[in-house]
Amino acid sequence: MSDDDGDAEQELGVTKSKEYETGEWYAEVVQKAGLANYGPEGMSGFIVTRPRGYALWERVQSALDAKFKDTGVQNAYFPMFIPESYLEAEKDIVEGFDPEVAWVTHGGHEELEERLAVRPTSESIITPYISQWVRSHRDLPLRVNQWCSVVRWEATETKPFFRTKEFLWQEGHTAHADRDDAWEETMLRLDQYESVYEDVLAIPVLRGQKPEHDKFPGADTTTTVEALMPDGKSVQGATSHHLGTSFAEAFDITYSDEDEEEQLAHTTSWGFSWRALGALIMTHSDDQGLVLPPTVAPTQVVIVPIWQADTKADVLEYAEGIRDDLADAGVRVELDDRDTRNPGFKFNEHELNGVPVRFEIGPHEEEDGEVTVVHRPDGEQSTVDRDGIVDAARSHLDEVFAKLYADAEETLEGEVREASSRNEILGTIGQHGGYVKAPWCGDEDCEAEVKDQLAAEIVMVPFADEDDRRGDDHDDDCAVCGDRATRTAYFAKTY
Amino acid sequence: MSDDDGDAEQELGVTKSKEYETGEWYAEVVQKAGLANYGPEGMSGFIVTRPRGYALWERVQSALDAKFKDTGVQNAYFPMFIPESYLEAEKDIVEGFDPEVAWVTHGGHEELEERLAVRPTSESIITPYISQWVRSHRDLPLRVNQWCSVVRWEATETKPFFRTKEFLWQEGHTAHADRDDAWEETMLRLDQYESVYEDVLAIPVLRGQKPEHDKFPGADTTTTVEALMPDGKSVQGATSHHLGTSFAEAFDITYSDEDEEEQLAHTTSWGFSWRALGALIMTHSDDQGLVLPPTVAPTQVVIVPIWQADTKADVLEYAEGIRDDLADAGVRVELDDRDTRNPGFKFNEHELNGVPVRFEIGPHEEEDGEVTVVHRPDGEQSTVDRDGIVDAARSHLDEVFAKLYADAEETLEGEVREASSRNEILGTIGQHGGYVKAPWCGDEDCEAEVKDQLAAEIVMVPFADEDDRRGDDHDDDCAVCGDRATRTAYFAKTY
Repeated sequence: MSDDDGDAEQELGVTKSKEYETGEWYAEVVQKAGLANYGPEGMSGFIVTRPRGYALWERVQSALDAKFKDTGVQNAYFPMFIPESYLEAEKDIVEGFDPEVAWVTHGGHEELEERLAVRPTSESIITPYISQWVRSHRDLPLRVNQWCSVVRWEATETKPFFRTKEFLWQEGHTAHADRDDAWEETMLRLDQYESVYEDVLAIPVLRGQKPEHDKFPGADTTTTVEALMPDGKSVQGATSHHLGTSFAEAFDITYSDEDEEEQLAHTTSWGFSWRALGALIMTHSDDQGLVLPPTVAPTQVVIVPIWQADTKADVLEYAEGIRDDLADAGVRVELDDRDTRNPGFKFNEHELNGVPVRFEIGPHEEEDGEVTVVHRPDGEQSTVDRDGIVDAARSHLDEVFAKLYADAEETLEGEVREASSRNEILGTIGQHGGYVKAPWCGDEDCEAEVKDQLAAEIVMVPFADEDDRRGDDHDDDCAVCGDRATRTAYFAKTY
Repeated sequence: MSDDDGDAEQELGVTKSKEYETGEWYAEVVQKAGLANYGPEGMSGFIVTRPRGYALWERVQSALDAKFKDTGVQNAYFPMFIPESYLEAEKDIVEGFDPEVAWVTHGGHEELEERLAVRPTSESIITPYISQWVRSHRDLPLRVNQWCSVVRWEATETKPFFRTKEFLWQEGHTAHADRDDAWEETMLRLDQYESVYEDVLAIPVLRGQKPEHDKFPGADTTTTVEALMPDGKSVQGATSHHLGTSFAEAFDITYSDEDEEEQLAHTTSWGFSWRALGALIMTHSDDQGLVLPPTVAPTQVVIVPIWQADTKADVLEYAEGIRDDLADAGVRVELDDRDTRNPGFKFNEHELNGVPVRFEIGPHEEEDGEVTVVHRPDGEQSTVDRDGIVDAARSHLDEVFAKLYADAEETLEGEVREASSRNEILGTIGQHGGYVKAPWCGDEDCEAEVKDQLAAEIVMVPFADEDDRRGDDHDDDCAVCGDRATRTAYFAKTY
């Protein structure tokens, strides 16, 4: 082996512990698995998404985009800049609106007459166009979505994918004839986000709405899917907003109904960002590196042949046959037949990169017409027959997915605890992290008391119809102030 | 019908003439076919790409992306901002480099220490990362591509898709062990661009290289595909640059070869933008509106049922069966069964929107087990049997594609003329537009003489191996100065 191999081997392993140094471990996995690099000097808060990281985004994007298209959404593209006066128009909707954005002040050598914001989100530029396009009830519902990058000039510490000044996302914007239709849309998109988390990323989520004071500015209701991270914090996985008529009023979206009467439209917006990749990496990976569900893994099965000089030809031919069978069946398979690396090195490398299933093929396997199968998440090893190898591969990939989901689900279930007093909330989150559910009167001040002491907040309130303790039938008192509780609140520390 | 229908009908038709008012006609088609709107006030040069326009981009993108992935390209994503000092580093490569870009000077309420350019192209930020990623010959070739938007602050008049301050494109960046490998890459990408123009957009192109003085700054060779527009001007359809070692030198891309010797890499970059949509719309459309090849048309076949009250049920059932058969076979089909529009209105609307094939289905067709088929480009009408309707649809779609390509090819062939003197070049382009090919000595001054008088320039020089009149065997004298010619130059007016 050349010097390079030595260097590469030294660099290969993850050195930090997921359990004890979660933040450092995460940063190391992201870099060593080749998912992302930090941005250039002078651009803190930006990242470079490398091919292995971007491939994950492409798979998530493709799954979500297909769901959108199946349910009446069309993609479009709006300018990345928004005139300052357009952003200002949102001040009519939201008092104290003060966007932290990147400002373009010069074009070429000229100073611009009006500053342009690099879009932090596009309601204020998309809604005026929807207003032009909607005239009659026949134009509704109108649904547009764009996949793009947005910039938010937050000064907080960068965490690749979780918190970056520029991030990739989709933002959907719709207009509807009435409140119910807009609400149905809001929930449909939340369902789709939930499904991407659970069925594609193998991450169970909690769903509900944000407290009044934590809604998207101008929204009637902000709904959210929340995912639990291994350090006990909650990540806001994606949000879907029922905007009511506030944006329609500010930007004049009206339509003539079937009786030729002028009506105000109801709008929604909903967004899903590459933060989902952060949750993916954080949830499943371990001290050996990245762990991926087969749904998004660029390589699902890696075949590592194990040979001596006299067995090489037979082993390789046998491995190639298996590779071809899998590839023909649409399994994303790679045969790692590099001469310059030994099997142990290859095992480590593919574990670091999160390949869900490894096939080990040596002379014994070749002679016996078998394959040794190893699962990435837990190292479970078994032997399968060469005959029916495609079905076996598929079933092992399904097993790996099921294991990852079950693990995450078990963790989540164990991390939702109940509390009935302020001290119990503080003590439980302080000791265990995770979610604490408690009866709540709905008053922002009660949340503030917890927030001040522990940096934990109400991340989610279950929907009325999914919460049997809501409303007038709520038997409990608010855990913080002791007044009558009206909702159940989930407290957690957040990203 | 309601008032809306009246309004819509008035707005529906294209009023300008392609032949006599090409620019105005183009702008009208883009807007009335719902492809794009102009940007907000204060943002001249920006457009809003509407769903029907974006759907075209998605199909082109998907075709090109598949070609890239089949040939070793991986997608990635780099920050949209580039520090001024990084852009400045290109000054080492190119004298007088003065990018006309949008400058971000403020983040939130703070002035930035260093201005950030919104990327006009990403060599200066991507190359330093490639430099980090490449260490050994085993890392080569390294190929990354990104699909993104870029901004160039040109003050010239906007033409949707052809010339916009922000545009969507892909930019590929590769590093190679040697010059030949980089050249092969350059040509492979040019081949793929040519194939997208010809096989997807039904637009024949000319291919060759740009004259020395019109290369991409820092490039060894800039190759191009050029498409002829109906007003006789040439559009640079896409470019692929052999960058030699200039960027590798400026940004230090070196690798250790098989003998552990340090070597300089050779790089390429190549880009394809939504200008291709401009060429698509301009080439095939007519005074009735948009014309699209079936390859990119969002709807390939529209079925317009024609009924009276007593035949409606039978006609509709028959039409639905045909719709279902086509949809099951993967044909993008739409049954326009709106009650509120008459068939004539529907014909006009789908013609305006460029649906390649129309099926007309009335009581006669239903009784006789037939379908009347109409081709969008030329109105050609025929009758096909209900049996085998899927094959018939496919064959008619192929015919429409072939017609569009043949028309464009015939036009192009008629618009390449030869000239052997400066006056002949000027006279020929002045009178006919199109391309004039002429022997050329290679001197920039000879082009300048033509450019000064006619705003025509050398858009392309055929490659040596595709040009039998090149080099020492060139018999002719330069059409402009009379010195010995070394190449053949294609002069044209440009977009």
